[in-house]
Order: sequence, then C-alpha cells, then structure tokens
Amino acid sequence: MSASVADDKHLHRLILFSDAVFAIAITLLAIEIHPPEHWNGVGELFRLMGPKLTAYTVSFAVIGINWISHRRTFAHLLRADGVLDVLNLLMLGLVALLPLGTELLWEQGGIEASRVYVGLVTAIGVAHALSWGYAAFVGKLATPALSAATKWFILVRVALLPGLMCWLVFTSVATGQPWGYLGIAGVMVVLAVVGRLLKRAGA
Amino acid sequence: MSASVADDKHLHRLILFSDAVFAIAITLLAIEIHPPEHWNGVGELFRLMGPKLTAYTVSFAVIGINWISHRRTFAHLLRADGVLDVLNLLMLGLVALLPLGTELLWEQGGIEASRVYVGLVTAIGVAHALSWGYAAFVGKLATPALSAATKWFILVRVALLPGLMCWLVFTSVATGQPWGYLGIAGVMVVLAVVGRLLKRAGA
Amino acid sequence: MSASVADDKHLHRLILFSDAVFAIAITLLAIEIHPPEHWNGVGELFRLMGPKLTAYTVSFAVIGINWISHRRTFAHLLRADGVLDVLNLLMLGLVALLPLGTELLWEQGGIEASRVYVGLVTAIGVAHALSWGYAAFVGKLATPALSAATKWFILVRVALLPGLMCWLVFTSVATGQPWGYLGIAGVMVVLAVVGRLLKRAGA
Amino acid sequence: MSASVADDKHLHRLILFSDAVFAIAITLLAIEIHPPEHWNGVGELFRLMGPKLTAYTVSFAVIGINWISHRRTFAHLLRADGVLDVLNLLMLGLVALLPLGTELLWEQGGIEASRVYVGLVTAIGVAHALSWGYAAFVGKLATPALSAATKWFILVRVALLPGLMCWLVFTSVATGQPWGYLGIAGVMVVLAVVGRLLKRAGA
Repeated sequence: MSASVADDKHLHRLILFSDAVFAIAITLLAIEIHPPEHWNGVGELFRLMGPKLTAYTVSFAVIGINWISHRRTFAHLLRADGVLDVLNLLMLGLVALLPLGTELLWEQGGIEASRVYVGLVTAIGVAHALSWGYAAFVGKLATPALSAATKWFILVRVALLPGLMCWLVFTSVATGQPWGYLGIAGVMVVLAVVGRLLKRAGA
Repeated sequence: MSASVADDKHLHRLILFSDAVFAIAITLLAIEIHPPEHWNGVGELFRLMGPKLTAYTVSFAVIGINWISHRRTFAHLLRADGVLDVLNLLMLGLVALLPLGTELLWEQGGIEASRVYVGLVTAIGVAHALSWGYAAFVGKLATPALSAATKWFILVRVALLPGLMCWLVFTSVATGQPWGYLGIAGVMVVLAVVGRLLKRAGA
Repeated sequence: MSASVADDKHLHRLILFSDAVFAIAITLLAIEIHPPEHWNGVGELFRLMGPKLTAYTVSFAVIGINWISHRRTFAHLLRADGVLDVLNLLMLGLVALLPLGTELLWEQGGIEASRVYVGLVTAIGVAHALSWGYAAFVGKLATPALSAATKWFILVRVALLPGLMCWLVFTSVATGQPWGYLGIAGVMVVLAVVGRLLKRAGA
Repeated sequence: MSASVADDKHLHRLILFSDAVFAIAITLLAIEIHPPEHWNGVGELFRLMGPKLTAYTVSFAVIGINWISHRRTFAHLLRADGVLDVLNLLMLGLVALLPLGTELLWEQGGIEASRVYVGLVTAIGVAHALSWGYAAFVGKLATPALSAATKWFILVRVALLPGLMCWLVFTSVATGQPWGYLGIAGVMVVLAVVGRLLKRAGA
C-alpha cells in the first residue's frame, strides 16, 4: 500500500468517526425531551414545551454549524496524523457535552446557564481552531494551494465565530434588542468580504 | 484535488451524515419503551405493550420511508453546496424529533397527539422538498439528464406524500373505515402511472 | 453516471445504514444497565449485576452474529432495489427491538420472557431470510456465480440459525443439561460439511 | 468481483462498524450526566459536577486512545476474516461497557470502583491484542512488509498500554504523588525508542 493511499485512509477514517460523533450528539439532543403529562390542545403543548424546543433548536443549529465548519476545514486537508487525531478528539469531546449543556439551558434558562453554554460553544470553536492551526501550520497536512493569509483567516473564523454568534443571539434574546442580530449580520458581511478578497488575491 | 473530486467528497460526507442521523433516530425509537412491571403470559405482555409497539411500528415506517425517499432524491445529485447542507440539516432536525413525537403518540394517543404527529411528518416532507427544490432548480446540483417535469414530480411527491399517507393511515385507524387505505392505494397508483409516463417521455 | 455506479452507490448506502443501526443497537444494549446503589467488593458487584451482564452478553452475541451474517449475505449482492430496502428495514426494525428484549430478559428472566426473546431472535432470522430470498431469487441482485443450491443453503441457514441457536442455549441454561450446546455443535458441523460440499460442487 | 475487492470490502465494513461503535460509546458517556437541580454561579456548578466531568474526561480519553490504537493496528491489515470479526466484536463489547464503568466511577469513586474500571480497560487492551495477534500471526491478514519484531512490539503495546496507563493515572490521583505520571512518561519514552529502533531495522 503506497503512503498516499494510507494517508487518505487515515483522513477518511478520522472524518467518518467525527461525522458519527456529530450525528449522534445532534440526535441525542432530543432524547431527554419528554412530552408534558397533561395538556389541552396543540397551543398549550407548544407553550409547555417551548423552552425545551427552543433550546433544542439552538443546539441543533450549533452542532449543525460546527459540522459544516468541520467539513469545510477538513476539505482542505490531504492527510491526517496522530496529533490531529488527538486535537480532533478534544473538539469531539466538547461537542458530545452539548446535550448536557442543552439540558442546563432549558432547566435553568438564566444568565448563568447561558454563560456556561456560551463558554462551551466557545471552547468547541477554540478546539476546532487548534486542530486547524496544527494541521495547516505545524503538521503540513493541508493542500499546498492554500495561501498563508487564507489559513489565518480560517483559523480566526473557526476560533471566534461559534462563541461570538452564540453570545450575540443570547444577548438579543435576553435584552429583547436587535443589536445582537445586527452584530451577526455585520460579522457575516465582513467575513464574506475578506473571504472574497483572499480568493481574488489567490487567483 | 480537482473540483469534481472535492464535490463528490462533499456530497458523500453529507449523505453519510444524513444516514447516521436517520439510523440513530430509528434506533432510538425503541429506547424509551420499557417492559411492563407485571404481566402473565405472552398475550398479556403484547396487550400491555400494544400502543407502544404500534407507535414504534408507525414511526419506524415513517423514518424508513423518509430514508428511502432521501436516498432516491440524493441519488440524482452530482454535488452538494452550503445551502443544501443547511436545508438538509433542517430536515434532519425534524427527523430527530420523531422519537419525541412517538412518545407523544403512545402516551396520549388522542386526536390532538395524532394531529401534532401528522404535522411533524408533514414538516419533514416539506423540508425534504425544500432541499430537493433548491438542489434541482436553484443550486443546479442535480444530474442534467433530469427533465424539468421529473424534477417537479419529485418535488410534489416528496412534499406531500409523507404527511398525506400518515394522515390517511391515522384516519383509517381512528374511524375504523378503510377509506384511508383505499386513498393510499389510489395515490400510489397515480404516482406510479405519472412516474412511468415521465420516464417514457424522457426516453 | 452509469447504471452500474448508481447500483453500487445504492447498495453501499444500504449497507452503511444497516451497519449504523446494528452498531447503535449493540451499543445501546448497555445503556439501561446501571450499577447497584450499594455493594461491597468486586465479588458482590458482579453477583448483583450478574443477570444484567449475562443478558447483555447474550444480546451482544445475537446482534454480533446477525451483523456477521448480514455482512456475509450482502457480500454476495451486486446491487440493491426498493424492495430490498423495505425488507432490510423490516429486519433492522426487529434488531432495534433487541435492547427492549434484553431488558425483558434480565427483569423477568423466566420462561415466558425467554420465549418472547427467542421469538424476537427467530423473527430477525426470518426477516433476514426474506431479504436474502428476494435478493437471490426474485430481484436477481446477487452475483450470477452463485449456484441455486448455495442460495437455498444460505436461505435456510439465515432463517433457522439465529432462533435455533438461541433456543438451544436457553434450554441448556434452563435445564442445566448440555444437550443444547451439543445440539449447537452438531448444527455447526452439519452446516460446515454442507457448505464445503456446495463449494466443491461449484468449483 | 475479484477476491481482493471482496477482501477490501469486508475489511472496510468491519472498520466502519467498529468506528460506529466507538463513536456511539464515546458520545453516550455524557448521556447519563445531568445538571444538578440547584446551583449558584458557575463555580458551584463545576464543583457539584466535578466528579462526573472528571469521570467523563477519563473515559473519553480511554475510548479516544483505543480508537486511535485500533485505527493504527487496522491500518496494517490487508483483509479481514470471520475470526477477526468475532475477536473484534469481543473488543467492541467491552468498549460498549465503558459508559457503565464511567457511571460506576463517578457514583462510587472509591478504590473498588477504580479497580473494576482498570480491569475493564485492561480487558479491552487484551481483546485488542487478541484481534491483532490473530490477524498478524495466525490469519496472515497483515501487510507482509511488517517484520515479526514489529508485530510483537504492537502486540505487547496494545495488550499492556491501556490498562497500565489507566492504573498509573488512578494511582497518581489517589496518592497525590506524581510517580504514576512519571511512570507514564517513562513508558512513552521506552515505546518511542523501541518503535524507532524497529523502524530503522526494517529500513
């Protein structure tokens, strides 16, 4: 077996394993949600289950966005190594805590629970950035076609985005003010512009 | 890595992730079912567990049919993109709620619970149709061999079938009349005829 | 995309989905097992958990053997179709009930619970045989190299073996007599001899 | 289908199944952890959840290291057979008990619970070594490029490392002395040196 086939298999198996963990964590989000014992009509059911379904939606979005982000960074990789295995496991270990974080969110719902939750989402982003930073700069696992500027751009995006967006959403919800959503829109525009500039510079 | 290989990998990973979510949701259906504490003989066991096993069977069929349907629409795709990722996640997020919907069904079993359940199944169909509609008409992700008529046929089938069939089954069960089952048979015949006509027209 | 590539993808996705369901069912077997609240020393722990660990071991073996059996029959297939999807789902729907069957086994442990459990294992075998029978004789999905005799041999083996072996083990355990284990040994020898004869006839 | 393609598919499916079990077991570790009912501030939350999060971290590391180890040994294999299926299932059956072992650890936390846990981790290593020993020496499933010395080195590493490292960590934690960690560092250095010598001898 040539070295390149072995590399490819290693990366493939790492991605498969990660996908499975993402998929299980996202499906387990709903497993602790149970219907209320008594309810009259669909309206009351949704009112009673509102906090749980909201927390479910937020966490589903968080895991979904992280899966998309993971897919995008790993699409730049040509191979994997043992260090990437470990750093990727660190990220997955935090993702697997999201069902617990979601339970915290719907049971307490206060500012403290939100803080813990945003902290967990931020930690996932940082762990993802560690994986990418190692793969792109230290382990030389990424495709050589990628410019250093693009690598740094991905690093910053991956590290900051999950926690920042989660915090902005929670702030908007808590204060009833739209500034959080506006902030997200602003961040998205800036990222899109920088991403386009980097692409043009690379072409 | 050529663009076509990268496209293929993206689609492949999206399908793998979806399959994992379908598989986990379908296997979790039974996890909240527990045997009764006291029972004498196999007959009583099945009588006591009847509602749960029925709800399990219905939901297993619902997820199974949606998985088959998902496999069929995605077999027409050549590649995936970020928008499809998001729309597909929307569908998976609703599929992952089916274990909860099943619990609702066996615990309440009334007309209101059935209504919520049929609503959830309908929402899954609509989300699936959104994914397919985007992929086929907007994102140009499907194989070019597909005629516009076939694309629309798939869209309508995917959007309406799950909710409609679920509603017809529940109606038949609730009323004890066979009209629901006859309706399903009628719908199946119409779909088969239209499908064949479209295939012939395309040939 | 040529028809053969599409066929291969269909079969591949069906196998992936099945593997995921087998893997989830086998891992969920232990999820309802909890340690006892009080115990002194490792000896007492194992004595208290004995029935649960025994039921776990039996069910792990049952799912494991069915997975191996599924892998072997599906290795003979060249492609899949919609009917195989449905029949395979029927088998998976029964496999997904094994964690529930296992709970029944350790909570009741009596002859009635064993009967239900053996019935479930037998039903899995029959559903597997239905899938194989359709694929081999009706759908023409198997490799043409397979003789009709071999196809029938696989059908009988797949249909009878799981339930028969499970029943023989339970009989031996219940009566404290070795006849069940001897029966298993006899069945294995007969199968091995017939399998070898068929292979020689085919060569 | 040529024999080599069939071999490759068998190995591929075995690896996929194993990855799924590893991924489910690692994600289920957190499923029995629930937030405390009352807590004031993040500090108290972490103090209350400390033992559970510690047990989670230990078990996540144990499964992660075993997954990496499994990936590495299976990367040396060219094909699989029925015996390897069974031995690998034995290992997976023990891995699937780790969520239960983790619960034991955080609920009891005493020396007896640690002993059971270390015993389980050791048993996983031994089952892994059985799989590898069979594949490398009996079943001739490994790549012929591997020297006998390397095969033995892998066998010893796989059999002893998980249990030994787990025991050293627990000893350090229990006694508050760093000898366990020093022991791990020593073992790692010896393994790295021997591994390098074997690689040089093979080149």
